Amino acid sequence: MARPRRSQATRLRLLEEGADVFLRQGFHGAGLLEVLSRARVPKGSFYNYFPSKEAFGAEVVRHYAAEFDARLDASAARAEKDAAGALERFYRDLAKEFADAGHGGGCLVGNLSGQLEDSELCRTAMADALRGWAERIARIVALGQAQGALRKDLSADEVAAFMLDSWEGAVLRMKVERSDRPLRRWIEVVLRGWIRA
Amino acid sequence: MARPRRSQATRLRLLEEGADVFLRQGFHGAGLLEVLSRARVPKGSFYNYFPSKEAFGAEVVRHYAAEFDARLDASAARAEKDAAGALERFYRDLAKEFADAGHGGGCLVGNLSGQLEDSELCRTAMADALRGWAERIARIVALGQAQGALRKDLSADEVAAFMLDSWEGAVLRMKVERSDRPLRRWIEVVLRGWIRA
Repeated sequence: MARPRRSQATRLRLLEEGADVFLRQGFHGAGLLEVLSRARVPKGSFYNYFPSKEAFGAEVVRHYAAEFDARLDASAARAEKDAAGALERFYRDLAKEFADAGHGGGCLVGNLSGQLEDSELCRTAMADALRGWAERIARIVALGQAQGALRKDLSADEVAAFMLDSWEGAVLRMKVERSDRPLRRWIEVVLRGWIRA
Repeated sequence: MARPRRSQATRLRLLEEGADVFLRQGFHGAGLLEVLSRARVPKGSFYNYFPSKEAFGAEVVRHYAAEFDARLDASAARAEKDAAGALERFYRDLAKEFADAGHGGGCLVGNLSGQLEDSELCRTAMADALRGWAERIARIVALGQAQGALRKDLSADEVAAFMLDSWEGAVLRMKVERSDRPLRRWIEVVLRGWIRA
């Protein structure tokens, strides 16, 4: 049997467009046809790349997670000198991007976590994504603790986990209210208050 | 023209089953047929009650919101004596219900807020739901501030808004991890730390 022709560039385009479409329309609300059309991939080729919409969803989550892994790694590099400042910059940049997008979209993992309860494949991908982010945030927090800028009465892991969960909640509220008040409040309460030494 | 026969009991059954089905399967993932079958309502009758799935979704959100409005009002009554204790009881009860449900389900509004960006009708219903809850939590917080138990450097409204948003985030994490650690962490960090005087 001839192996189907697959290109890495096409696969990547599908993942990028998938992330964008799922972000806005949800997983079940989004049609694969729209993803394929945006990625300029013929209908029949989808299954050369992914065995199912569910498997595609899990891959989209992993792809999206890796993008923020890289951003957090860049923040961690900046955090060597000033972890509190690096965190503030990371979250302010994110808040600005959300504002530029009209407060829609939000976080793909936050959005999908409310609607993919029945897919163990996607749930595991989301849990892994959040764990990966939390670990990276914890590394920055630990630097800030060593620098004397951040509270030490809680472990860096606990601080990071609470930061991540509460941020995801604020992002959802931003979407529903179409307002950046929830994110501004989060930055004020968490970054300028709760995490400080 | 004969008016369609409508019963309040049937309408209520549709709303209750709708809440349950949307909670587990999401809005787009859920079929009206399942809701109708669970509510023992013939297919053709749905549109006697609701003009569209979207309008139904908004009503389901309002119905769900009212249930928690009532629970928060009951907490507010208990809060006259001990607001911090009433808050702790409210959230511990919720956490227990989630645990009993296997950490699935979660909060309908939190779940749907990630997937109904395109429906202004549902988005408005969700924003109203969250505003109603936040106002009720703020009333309890204000009592706790007057009792000297809760912090006064932030307004009761700001404290309540942060509590609500961060709780919703913790509930999503609970769903994804299938674990009550996020809720236990939230109770420890927020109720036993951050909100205290």
